[in-house]
Amino acid sequence: MIILGIDPGYAIVGYGIVGYDSHNFTPLAYGAVTTEAGLPADRRLEMVYDGVCSIIDRYRPDAVAVEQLFFTTNQKTVIMVAQARGVILLAAKKKGVPVYEYTPLQVKQSVVGYGKAIKKQVMEMTRKLLRLEKVPKPDDAADALAIAICHGHSASSYVGKSKLEEAIAKSEQRDALRRRELEQKKLGLPR
Amino acid sequence: MIILGIDPGYAIVGYGIVGYDSHNFTPLAYGAVTTEAGLPADRRLEMVYDGVCSIIDRYRPDAVAVEQLFFTTNQKTVIMVAQARGVILLAAKKKGVPVYEYTPLQVKQSVVGYGKAIKKQVMEMTRKLLRLEKVPKPDDAADALAIAICHGHSASSYVGKSKLEEAIAKSEQRDALRRRELEQKKLGLPR
Repeated sequence: MIILGIDPGYAIVGYGIVGYDSHNFTPLAYGAVTTEAGLPADRRLEMVYDGVCSIIDRYRPDAVAVEQLFFTTNQKTVIMVAQARGVILLAAKKKGVPVYEYTPLQVKQSVVGYGKAIKKQVMEMTRKLLRLEKVPKPDDAADALAIAICHGHSASSYVGKSKLEEAIAKSEQRDALRRRELEQKKLGLPR
Repeated sequence: MIILGIDPGYAIVGYGIVGYDSHNFTPLAYGAVTTEAGLPADRRLEMVYDGVCSIIDRYRPDAVAVEQLFFTTNQKTVIMVAQARGVILLAAKKKGVPVYEYTPLQVKQSVVGYGKAIKKQVMEMTRKLLRLEKVPKPDDAADALAIAICHGHSASSYVGKSKLEEAIAKSEQRDALRRRELEQKKLGLPR
């Protein structure tokens, strides 16, 4: 399964594409779609839409995972980011790829195993799970990879599997959890 | 000039198309694009996008005027409406129609001549300026027509005209203002 994770934004849209098979993640590509500050709103939204469409065309993901948006103190930013998020969801829909939405808490829980994990811990665990030498840059791309991992973990617990498939999936999930716990110990994270 | 006014929304997107010539407005069509509450977010955004695209295809407006969004107490709603607004701006851009954005204050100022006008006054003045028998329904459509009128008034003061054209435009604008003042007196509005 190929998963496209997206960290929605207006000036910077982080994306991360991972392959996911038997609880192993393979990083395929990551980066950011960027839009210039001086351009009109409709042009910037078009750049976001076209950017996401061409990433989908290139990597043909089976799922698009997008982080949910919450109100921040900067209301102007949240409206602009939400507008961009609208065209991101539209791009996935128009390309026929199912969309899944996750809260920041779900992403932290899924990647680090701890909902109150700080950004640095999420990034470090993302790096480890993808067996990358360094934490991906920009931060938006690392966030997008974490969202893709979150979807992988979530999708692996899907229903609609046969009893045997379910048993295999559960055993694999147990192994993955054990590996994650080992990593957590190394990072000195609370359990 | 044909103007498409849009009152952005998620469940209901109001639209109003007016012809504008020599400070006279002609209502061409109005209504709403609606999306069902139970559908997934990406599907609802697609319905808004496709709806706006087909209105543009049908009426071929010279301009799209969209109301600006402000933070309300309901943060969940504002994020959903902003997402829809994003695909509305994208639809105009993809169809090659220039987008203009107006604040609610600008719309009230322009239609009623009074920034603190209440909703009912804006609707009644919209009805009068369009010479309609009744205030258009739903409210979202009436709002959209008011936004289109706001753009008409604003566009008539554009630069780039010859001296003669400018003089004619100014004289027509004066007449339009005088007509509006008469209407204001009838409505008992403050000056």
